[in-house]
Amino acid sequence: MNVIVERIAKFMRNAWRIGADDPAKVVHCLKVGLALSLVSIFYYMRPLYDGVGGNAMWAIMTVVVVFESNVGATFSKCVNRVVATILAGSLGIAVHWVATQSGKAEIFVIGCSVFLFAFAATYSRFVPSFKARFDYGAMIFILTFSLVSVGGYRVDKLVDMAQQRVSTIAIGTSICIFITVFFCPIWAGTQLHRLVQRNFVKLADSLDGCVAEYLKKKDVEKNGIEDEETNMKLQGFKCVLNSKGTEESMANLARWEPAHGSFNFRHPWQQYVKIGAAMRRCAYCLENLSICMNYEAEAPDQVKNHFGEACLKLSSASSKILRELADMMNNTRKSSKMDFLVFDMNSAVQELQETLKTVPVRTNNAKEDGTMTMSLHEVLPVATLVSLLIENAARIQT
Amino acid sequence: MNVIVERIAKFMRNAWRIGADDPAKVVHCLKVGLALSLVSIFYYMRPLYDGVGGNAMWAIMTVVVVFESNVGATFSKCVNRVVATILAGSLGIAVHWVATQSGKAEIFVIGCSVFLFAFAATYSRFVPSFKARFDYGAMIFILTFSLVSVGGYRVDKLVDMAQQRVSTIAIGTSICIFITVFFCPIWAGTQLHRLVQRNFVKLADSLDGCVAEYLKKKDVEKNGIEDEETNMKLQGFKCVLNSKGTEESMANLARWEPAHGSFNFRHPWQQYVKIGAAMRRCAYCLENLSICMNYEAEAPDQVKNHFGEACLKLSSASSKILRELADMMNNTRKSSKMDFLVFDMNSAVQELQETLKTVPVRTNNAKEDGTMTMSLHEVLPVATLVSLLIENAARIQT
Repeated sequence: MNVIVERIAKFMRNAWRIGADDPAKVVHCLKVGLALSLVSIFYYMRPLYDGVGGNAMWAIMTVVVVFESNVGATFSKCVNRVVATILAGSLGIAVHWVATQSGKAEIFVIGCSVFLFAFAATYSRFVPSFKARFDYGAMIFILTFSLVSVGGYRVDKLVDMAQQRVSTIAIGTSICIFITVFFCPIWAGTQLHRLVQRNFVKLADSLDGCVAEYLKKKDVEKNGIEDEETNMKLQGFKCVLNSKGTEESMANLARWEPAHGSFNFRHPWQQYVKIGAAMRRCAYCLENLSICMNYEAEAPDQVKNHFGEACLKLSSASSKILRELADMMNNTRKSSKMDFLVFDMNSAVQELQETLKTVPVRTNNAKEDGTMTMSLHEVLPVATLVSLLIENAARIQT
Repeated sequence: MNVIVERIAKFMRNAWRIGADDPAKVVHCLKVGLALSLVSIFYYMRPLYDGVGGNAMWAIMTVVVVFESNVGATFSKCVNRVVATILAGSLGIAVHWVATQSGKAEIFVIGCSVFLFAFAATYSRFVPSFKARFDYGAMIFILTFSLVSVGGYRVDKLVDMAQQRVSTIAIGTSICIFITVFFCPIWAGTQLHRLVQRNFVKLADSLDGCVAEYLKKKDVEKNGIEDEETNMKLQGFKCVLNSKGTEESMANLARWEPAHGSFNFRHPWQQYVKIGAAMRRCAYCLENLSICMNYEAEAPDQVKNHFGEACLKLSSASSKILRELADMMNNTRKSSKMDFLVFDMNSAVQELQETLKTVPVRTNNAKEDGTMTMSLHEVLPVATLVSLLIENAARIQT
């Protein structure tokens, strides 16, 4: 009994934290409630109810299924649903007409066509380029087609029914679009933009943290609370590693959205995916660096001292660039400081290479060199990142 | 016009390749067609149709929405749908009863309860632990609850309707389960197992390929076709990097599946996720190694010769372990050769470390050392992997 209570309590605490961290989620839930209440009005008002002939159920269903947390997803589902319903509905009516003309073979014709279209539509859902945009539409197509063609066998006023159903779906989708766009809209594009920007900051924090942690002397006393905080920062790059899926789906959804804020309709969302990929390359380096940190055998202190300064300089130059990039994204224009920072970083790289050449032979330890080369490797992805972002910023400005 | 034809042709070629690569997908599509044809029988047979009072539509809808390509996903959706429908249906009837008792406040009571439950159910979909298993159930809950409580305002025989709907859904789900399990079943567990095993082989190929490519002399003539093939192998680790999401969802779905093949009901699927994480750590190292390969400045040939042998030995020892692990997964039991191979790898590491110490000072080049330390770093994840898999194999045996 106690275990169950504890579990529920844990679940509730968890749920509360999610809401506190991101109030947009709570807003979304309120919007769902509002949309459903609005759609229920169709049931309560007799003239409206009679107008759609008891098919008002489909409006409720549309709202429940189509309403998503950001505008892009809702738009894409609405368009998918309406287009697929109309397409499948007219096809279903056509098949039904052919079937009635064919007399005794009616059931056979309907059965075969359902089988064939279901097969084709299900198959198309496996093609990645189609799936990314029309997955939901294909499902609605199968559903509507079978309902209309099979259902037509029993229902007499097929065209009336189809018409009513399309109008209820139109009511449902328009309520959804109205509420998502006009009540505290949550844009997929803005979320993507913020996600990428936050990832830049996280990368910079992790980079600083990892290098500092590695070079830190063992005998320094540790403060518990502080340690946890730095640990959080060190783990920041893990978020970057795992954000691939989110970025791709967001970029896909953002394409459906109309112009909002500082984003135009044809904002180059695919660029964000590329930036994300470049950031993930940086994060791989950090992952390896953190594996180095956990090595059982540590590099001796004198090696650390030898490299320490150059290393810190390089990492701080790199992280400054990352932070500047985050700022640039915030203002969506090119920063004038950028060239200067890139120059700084390049000179730090040179310095580190000089230091490497003067390393005393004895202490030429694999692990230590590991860190250095890591830092060097970070330069390459960062450079890619910079060029990508400069291009991106240029596009935004035009 | 030509552009459109070309696009369609490209799409068709693409679709054909997908089917040829994985016949299981074609089988799935055939199964969907079959299930829909079966469920249409309810429309054609008058006694069956009358038995469910024209609600046969819900059986079709259930089949379309619930039928997924693997058994685990279909099971989970069926369970979610049935449980959520029954729960929401009874709750909806209760709310409807309370509303009718309250006289004039009827609409108010129904409206508020719809708002509240929709809010709570939508919110629960944001809690990750809940979402992983009951996301679909929460949606069906909202849908059924609003349909029953709001619809009850207009429909007189509410209990009859609810009963018919539950029975049609039961018919739909049982047809789905019957077809997924008995016609060429596609198990999420088996797919996960194969995915992990294939990833081991890909990692081993990439490791061999990357190290060989790096040490290869520039002046060797390249054969075009061969080159493409090696390139494919080199990119193998990218699949490993991107398979995190698939692995997690598969492991989640596999839990719903009954015992099949050599897997028991409580097979430790979560272990696969851990193995996947360990493999991804290896893949990060390979990613960095391949960044090294693309460096503009190459290490001079004499350095390569100096390290070449030790490096190749280590990489072949590591990849042998990876291949052995793939074999072990194939036979689902512990291999006797494993200890021997691990010993081999460890000695190769030692040898490489020795070679590193004797490196001539002049050629102490950051990039070159990079490769070495990479190889060293690969050892750590591989060791983790080994211990995990040995544990896993032990569990399978018991």
